[in-house]
Amino acid sequence: MNKAASHQKPTLSIIKIGGNVIDNTEKLATFLTAFCGLPGFKILVHGGGKMATKLSQDMGIEAKMLNGRRVTDAEMLKMVTMVYAGLINKNIVAQLQAQQCNAIGLSGADGNLILAKKRPIQQIKNSETGETENIDFGYVGDLDAQSVHTKNLSVLLNNGFIPVFSAITHNGEGQLLNTNADTIASALAVALSQIYDTSLIYCFEKKGVLRDVDDEQSAISEINPSIFETLQAQNIIHSGMLPKLHNAFEAINNGVKQVFIGHADELHLLHTQQFGTRITI
Amino acid sequence: MNKAASHQKPTLSIIKIGGNVIDNTEKLATFLTAFCGLPGFKILVHGGGKMATKLSQDMGIEAKMLNGRRVTDAEMLKMVTMVYAGLINKNIVAQLQAQQCNAIGLSGADGNLILAKKRPIQQIKNSETGETENIDFGYVGDLDAQSVHTKNLSVLLNNGFIPVFSAITHNGEGQLLNTNADTIASALAVALSQIYDTSLIYCFEKKGVLRDVDDEQSAISEINPSIFETLQAQNIIHSGMLPKLHNAFEAINNGVKQVFIGHADELHLLHTQQFGTRITI
Repeated sequence: MNKAASHQKPTLSIIKIGGNVIDNTEKLATFLTAFCGLPGFKILVHGGGKMATKLSQDMGIEAKMLNGRRVTDAEMLKMVTMVYAGLINKNIVAQLQAQQCNAIGLSGADGNLILAKKRPIQQIKNSETGETENIDFGYVGDLDAQSVHTKNLSVLLNNGFIPVFSAITHNGEGQLLNTNADTIASALAVALSQIYDTSLIYCFEKKGVLRDVDDEQSAISEINPSIFETLQAQNIIHSGMLPKLHNAFEAINNGVKQVFIGHADELHLLHTQQFGTRITI
Repeated sequence: MNKAASHQKPTLSIIKIGGNVIDNTEKLATFLTAFCGLPGFKILVHGGGKMATKLSQDMGIEAKMLNGRRVTDAEMLKMVTMVYAGLINKNIVAQLQAQQCNAIGLSGADGNLILAKKRPIQQIKNSETGETENIDFGYVGDLDAQSVHTKNLSVLLNNGFIPVFSAITHNGEGQLLNTNADTIASALAVALSQIYDTSLIYCFEKKGVLRDVDDEQSAISEINPSIFETLQAQNIIHSGMLPKLHNAFEAINNGVKQVFIGHADELHLLHTQQFGTRITI
């Protein structure tokens, strides 16, 4: 092995799946098989799906909204902890284990792997009334550059465990926090890119960032910052896709080797580079 | 270091807590502080408490009983997975992490750590009718000598993680299973006694096995098989205490160094040996 090769970092893929994959038993099984087939180190991050919403309704817990934003009160935190870190996480782990993929289900509290800060009360202008309001998002955790415990996480990876993260973190003082799964995936990728050649892959129900939302075949093959600016100006990228792209750029701008956004059904195409939308610097 | 010393195994304490500790915030906090203070390697195993029962009622899921025995149907399995592996497990982990105790919350599916077999349909004589009935306990897992993945578990222990197990296992084919927490603690202790000098401590709401159930101060200091036989004959040990003692003897007869049954509030007394009831060969 020459000197350059001996300095090569091992490869790591961080895959995030959202609710549309989780809610569909067949799609989830297909995805998990493709995930098991990925070479190198890997981590799965999953969101919640509609199950938490449905169960909350069954139990009479209403999703609280303030100024159009979802609020995690104590009852809702209980619910997402049960559904995300319990039901969904353990079922995914059991399904991966059935394929000899040595999954270990985790929240950010486990092994102190992801330390978050409770989001402070924010002053936000109400778009309808024009008045400034104090918004308390409740038990929501935000991440920063120090959030990921890379040492503990690489101990797990290097010993053959495949971490499966639910979107629950903690504040280090005994409080669990609800945290955006896209943000967790991006933060893990940035932190671990110090140790691994890291790829970040956002899987959802579209074949990438679509030029025309009604045309499944209109996925844009590559988005760099100037293309992003143009697409935003043309209103092609808006609403829900914006935070995902911000997380993607955050990753690619901070040491992550490659970032893709694509369809969960097509994860097996990743190695061909013919997968979804590639985010570039 | 002489040869004998170099062959000494490291010490491991496996502590099981039940519902009465979990349901009481103050008692749980006291217990967790004592747990953090235990020297050597350690593992916590927790049961469920009344929360699963209460939540099931809120959601209209009825606890099914067949011939006086609890049955885990698909809906109840969902519920215990949410409550045990999600809500209770992650809150305990977050509280331990707040005390710099590097807890990692696990089910038996995680890292394939505890592999169970779904309990087969059993023919049981109905005590009232005298007729033999086929009883399907549903998604209940039984353990055997091969259930515990000692290698994966010792990797976690040796890297500074403190496993916190909920009473959920899997069958290796994608199915989660509800498993008795006392049995999990005993199986872990037996399997890990190959590698560690293992103590098994059952914590509950009494100061040990009581000679007189109405006298809190009547804890029996030691029970060996012949004392056990006498106590059973005198009907001093019966019903709920029997399976716990069977698990305790299973452990002490199969390589576990010491086994205690005592009060969760008194865990700090463990090192004085003035703790609860000691089970001996």
